[in-house]
Amino acid sequence: MSPDDGTVAGTGEFALIDAVTAGRRQPAATLLGPGDDAAVLAAPDGRVVASTDVLVHGVHFRLDWSSPEQVGRKAAAVNLADIAAMGAHPTSLLVGIACPPDTPTEVITELAKGMWAEAERAGIGVSGGDMVRADQLVVSVTALGDLGGRAPVTRSGARPGDVVAVCGNLGWAAAGLAVLGRGFRSPVGVVNAQRCPEPPYAAGPQAADAGATSMIDVSDGLLADLGHLAKSSGVGIDIRSADLDVAPRLVEVGTALGADPLRWVLTGGEDHALAATFPPFGDPPEGWRAIGAVTIAESGVTVDGKPYEHESGWEHWR
Amino acid sequence: MSPDDGTVAGTGEFALIDAVTAGRRQPAATLLGPGDDAAVLAAPDGRVVASTDVLVHGVHFRLDWSSPEQVGRKAAAVNLADIAAMGAHPTSLLVGIACPPDTPTEVITELAKGMWAEAERAGIGVSGGDMVRADQLVVSVTALGDLGGRAPVTRSGARPGDVVAVCGNLGWAAAGLAVLGRGFRSPVGVVNAQRCPEPPYAAGPQAADAGATSMIDVSDGLLADLGHLAKSSGVGIDIRSADLDVAPRLVEVGTALGADPLRWVLTGGEDHALAATFPPFGDPPEGWRAIGAVTIAESGVTVDGKPYEHESGWEHWR
Repeated sequence: MSPDDGTVAGTGEFALIDAVTAGRRQPAATLLGPGDDAAVLAAPDGRVVASTDVLVHGVHFRLDWSSPEQVGRKAAAVNLADIAAMGAHPTSLLVGIACPPDTPTEVITELAKGMWAEAERAGIGVSGGDMVRADQLVVSVTALGDLGGRAPVTRSGARPGDVVAVCGNLGWAAAGLAVLGRGFRSPVGVVNAQRCPEPPYAAGPQAADAGATSMIDVSDGLLADLGHLAKSSGVGIDIRSADLDVAPRLVEVGTALGADPLRWVLTGGEDHALAATFPPFGDPPEGWRAIGAVTIAESGVTVDGKPYEHESGWEHWR
Repeated sequence: MSPDDGTVAGTGEFALIDAVTAGRRQPAATLLGPGDDAAVLAAPDGRVVASTDVLVHGVHFRLDWSSPEQVGRKAAAVNLADIAAMGAHPTSLLVGIACPPDTPTEVITELAKGMWAEAERAGIGVSGGDMVRADQLVVSVTALGDLGGRAPVTRSGARPGDVVAVCGNLGWAAAGLAVLGRGFRSPVGVVNAQRCPEPPYAAGPQAADAGATSMIDVSDGLLADLGHLAKSSGVGIDIRSADLDVAPRLVEVGTALGADPLRWVLTGGEDHALAATFPPFGDPPEGWRAIGAVTIAESGVTVDGKPYEHESGWEHWR
C-alpha cells in the first residue's frame, strides 16, 4: 500500500499517532501526555478511580449506523459514566484502537475527534494510547478519575428503606436501536441517543455529596443494573412505574413501532443514566428523580410490587 | 450453546467474571477491586502513571505458539515495562478481553491466571476489567504506577556526552521468533523469551534514583527505540557493538539458523529491556550495562560510528 492511499497502512502507525495527538490541548491534570512510555496524571486525592471498557464493531456499534465521531464519543462516554458512578470526577482517558490495515485513516482521526469532544465535555483530555492491527475495529478505553476526598459510592451500600433515584435518560437508546433496526434514521433524538449517550457526569459527585448510599451506571438496563446493585447490597428494590419518566417522544416511537415504551425504560441499556440510593426522609438532589424504594432481599427486584415479566438486560456471548 | 459446553458463551459473562476474579488476593494498593463500576487504587504520590497496550491474536501472539497463560503474562509484562520505563513502581492492572463466543472458557481463565502471575511478580494485582464478544481474541491492558516522589524519566532528557546503558535481555525474543517461525520449539530459553518477556521492573525506579536523564522500554528493537529517544531528546546516539551482550545461546541459535545474532540484539523487539541515559563520569547502576554514548543530533543513531544497514524495528500496518 502506498504512503498516500488514505488507509491506516498507507499513513503508518507513527504518522497516525501524530495525526490524532497533534494540536490537542491537554488539561492541567495531564502532567505528561502522549509521546512517552506512559502518561502521568494528577491524582490530588491520593487515590485514583479506574475503569476499562471495550467496544467492538458489530457488537457495540456499527459504522453504517453511527459516524466514527459518534463511536469515539460513545467509547469515551461509557467509561466516563463508570467514573461518575463512583462519585468521582474524571481526570483522563487512555485509548487502545485495533483496526484492519485497510481502515480509512479518516475513520480513526474522526473517532479520535469524537473521543476528544466527549473528553472535553467532561473537562478532561486523552493522555495516551496504543494503535495496532486487527481484523475488526476494537476500541478499548480506560478512564481515570479523582474522588476529591469523597468515599467511593459502591454498589453495596443500599439499605432497606432507602430511596431509589435516577438521573439521566432511560429507554432512549433502546428506542433508537429499535428505530435503526427497522431501517429508519429518525426521530433523530432517539437515534442519536443510541449513537452516543450523554451521561450526566456531574450528577455522580453530586449524589456522593448528597449522601448516596450506593450508585451504579445504567449500562445493561435499569432492572438489570438495579439487580446488580441489589445483589451487591443484599437488598431488594421496588420500582414505582408511575414515577418513571416515559418521555412523550418514546411514547410516539412506541406507538409507531408497536412497542411498549415502558419496557424500553425498564430494560433498555446504553443510555448510561446513573441510578443511586439515598437515605429515607429527604428529597434526592436536584436533577434526580425518585422512582422507588429499597426493600428486603427476599423481595427481589420488582415493579409495582411484582416481578417484571420481560427479559431484563444484556449479557455478552448469549 | 448450553450452559456447560465449555465455551465462554456457555459459561456466560457474569459466571466468567466470577471465575477469573474469585479468590484472588488483592494487594494493599487495591482499595476497591473488581465488582463495581470502577476500581479504586492508592496513588500515594499524588500523581498516577498510566499506559495502555493492545495485543491481538495473530499479530502479537499466536495460541499455537504460546499457551493462554503465557499470553496473559506477556500482556501484563509489556504494560508493566512501560510503567518501569518512567521510573515508577506499578500499582495495578486493568484488563479488557474481547473474544469469540466459541472460545474455550479455559483459554480465558488460563489467560487471567498468567496475567495474575505476572502482576504478582511485580507485586500488584488485577483490579478491574471488561469482557466482550469479538471475532478475534484481543487483550487490552492498562497498567498504573506510582512515582514515589521521583520526577518521571521521559524520553526527552538525554544530553550529548551521557552514557547509554541497558538492563534486561536483548535479541532473545527475536531469536525465539526465528526458531518458532521455522517450526521448532527449542531451545526453550529463546522460545520462552518470545512467549513471555521478563522485563526488569525494579530497574526503572533504580535508574531514576541513579539520575537517569532519559529512559525507554525496548519494545520495537534497540535501534528503533533509541531512535525514538534520540528524536525526543534532539540528540544522536552511538552504540559500541563490542559492549553489547550477545549471549552464547543467541550465537548458537544464529549459527543453527544461519542468522546474525548481533542483528537480533540491535533490531529485535519484544524483550522489553530498559534503555536509559546517565550523566557522564560515573558507572551506570548495578545490573545496567553501558553500551554507548549520546552524541549530537546530526550524527543520528549509529553503531560503531556508522549507520546500521538493516531495517531497525517494527511498525504496525506496514
